[in-house]
Amino acid sequence: MSKNILILPGDGIGPEIVAEAVKVLEAASEKYNLGVELSYDDLGGAAYDRYGTPLADETLERGRQADAILLGAVGGPKWDTIEPALRPERGLLKIRSQLQLFGNLRPALLYPQLAEASTLKPEVVSGLDILIVRELTGGIYFGQPRERRVLDNGERQAYDTLPYSESEIRRIATVGFDMARLRSKKLCSVDKANVLASSQLWREVVEEVAKDYPDVELSHMYVDNAAMQLVRAPKQFDVIVTDNMFGDILSDQASMLTGSIGMLPSASLNAQNKGMYEPCHGSAPDIAGQGIANPLATILSVSMMLRYSFAEADAADAIEKAVSQVLDQGLRTGDIMAADCRQVGTREMGDAVVAAL
Amino acid sequence: MSKNILILPGDGIGPEIVAEAVKVLEAASEKYNLGVELSYDDLGGAAYDRYGTPLADETLERGRQADAILLGAVGGPKWDTIEPALRPERGLLKIRSQLQLFGNLRPALLYPQLAEASTLKPEVVSGLDILIVRELTGGIYFGQPRERRVLDNGERQAYDTLPYSESEIRRIATVGFDMARLRSKKLCSVDKANVLASSQLWREVVEEVAKDYPDVELSHMYVDNAAMQLVRAPKQFDVIVTDNMFGDILSDQASMLTGSIGMLPSASLNAQNKGMYEPCHGSAPDIAGQGIANPLATILSVSMMLRYSFAEADAADAIEKAVSQVLDQGLRTGDIMAADCRQVGTREMGDAVVAAL
Ligand SMILES: CC(C)[C@H](C(=O)O)[C@@H](O)C(=O)O
Ligand SMILES: CC(C)[C@H](C(=O)O)[C@@H](O)C(=O)O
Repeated sequence: MSKNILILPGDGIGPEIVAEAVKVLEAASEKYNLGVELSYDDLGGAAYDRYGTPLADETLERGRQADAILLGAVGGPKWDTIEPALRPERGLLKIRSQLQLFGNLRPALLYPQLAEASTLKPEVVSGLDILIVRELTGGIYFGQPRERRVLDNGERQAYDTLPYSESEIRRIATVGFDMARLRSKKLCSVDKANVLASSQLWREVVEEVAKDYPDVELSHMYVDNAAMQLVRAPKQFDVIVTDNMFGDILSDQASMLTGSIGMLPSASLNAQNKGMYEPCHGSAPDIAGQGIANPLATILSVSMMLRYSFAEADAADAIEKAVSQVLDQGLRTGDIMAADCRQVGTREMGDAVVAAL
Repeated sequence: MSKNILILPGDGIGPEIVAEAVKVLEAASEKYNLGVELSYDDLGGAAYDRYGTPLADETLERGRQADAILLGAVGGPKWDTIEPALRPERGLLKIRSQLQLFGNLRPALLYPQLAEASTLKPEVVSGLDILIVRELTGGIYFGQPRERRVLDNGERQAYDTLPYSESEIRRIATVGFDMARLRSKKLCSVDKANVLASSQLWREVVEEVAKDYPDVELSHMYVDNAAMQLVRAPKQFDVIVTDNMFGDILSDQASMLTGSIGMLPSASLNAQNKGMYEPCHGSAPDIAGQGIANPLATILSVSMMLRYSFAEADAADAIEKAVSQVLDQGLRTGDIMAADCRQVGTREMGDAVVAAL
């Protein structure tokens, strides 16, 4: 039974970092007899250039057929002026939504070897290991109606809608509790229930799901307070579950606490654990094509893929260990460079991980 | 022409810190011949206990008549279980909205004397001085419709609406540009224009207002990136203008960068610069009544009141200088206590500021 994996290199540094991640995936496949079969397609700006749309129907269909997807990153100034509905991000939002990849896992993990890279004091972040579970296919990023119109008084007005249904909340809360159970059994649900109707339902349904997880300690926090606490004492958190927009903001904030966003992978899962895997960072058009981008977040995304979509924990662990090893060897791309280390390019970093594997 | 000021001590530590701020206000009034006349009322939980509602009509009317309002803080566990529409926060939201206090100024200023209190490395935050301009009476915290309902399939669903009209955006953008002009002439507008319809209009109108401010350098940033950049390199920001919800989250995050949220005041202004002034921190029910809360944020809110609502810059400067002086003297409340300083209570801190004045 081969594993069909769709590779979407995307834009900017996407193709470079994905190339290294594919090398690692193939090496792992060989070593652990995973039987991966790869196919390639485009998403985002690259898809717009080729198909005239950031996500072609045939690409979506290929995504549906695949067992998992590996994505680089999308977007860049080249496509900033095309009409909003055709911009690269739209392709990303559409594939998430069409494949119902509602469960977005975003770890914010501080590698001990890179502790110095954080802008926070070492005692505040050393050992930091947070998992943010973000709802990815509902809420205000997809809610209807959304419209721009002219009011009776002649003024322009625009609005968006933030809807959540019970089933949407229940399935993401379940992911949060499941993850908490695998970790330190502490789950913090973030909302704005003192103001928003959607957050009040969110909190209620999370409480209902909690009844099935008596072994997990649940707490609730308002989003504004969560943004403060992530700065004040981030190690108080283990697993955070939250909605699409709050998760967008807080996961980016949390990832930056580590100082090395070039190291952070992510997974977006559907109900059957089929997933799309991508680095947390963007397409970095400013350094694209120079061979200097950090491929480790994408390589670690492969590890997440093996763990979550294919239950190949040994192979996943081996990739993580290999990454840790190259850090121990003192190899660093520019973004994580430090004194007494050796600066390497994208390809050399990928080769080193393959060698360590 | 006397200045009528309505004092709303509120809940938790509110009464204690407001008492000290009133002492400072009266001392400044005497020294600078400000002619202040004070009246008192309740807001939040205290108002619920007295009037059965977190904002009584007569209190609102008194707020309308006043030239400025000084607020302590609202909320506490005592009122956590009453029905949502009567909770303390509702009173706060209602007075903001009814008095059209749309322009919320939230400085995040690092006092050199307290640099150590930040969880960020000194080189990242030393000299930090950001002003967040948050839209306070529109957007998703007030948008209609908002509803909870049962869908045809029997599921519960809830939704909120995020609307912005051209005039709402224009007036807050104008506050942002005016503030930028008084400072370093750099304004960063934060939105999520790659996804939200309301953000697209926001960006468009901000660009239109920019035409009247050719001397101010305008940039745009997505909210997720802003949350990252506030951790990575906060000193890149001077004035940030953003919507109600993003401003709620980012201003709390920014205030915590200083490590001493007990020092940060805020102003909420209407179109005529009538304002409500309150500390950024909350009602801290855990330490209420102990006489140990830090009154400096409330005292500095008085300074903002004199500056923005009454154009009494000398008196405002004098209060700020007095606060700086007591810090130089080594006086500290518990929340900002450090080695070689002398820990004082709420009242002693207030007295010291009055003496320095
Ligand atoms: C590109 C954008 C639409 C996307 C999002 O906001 O979901 C990105 O910021 C992310 O977090 O993956
Ligand atoms: C209490 C709450 C409604 C309020 C808000 O979200 O506006 C508070 O968090 C604030 O920022 O002043």
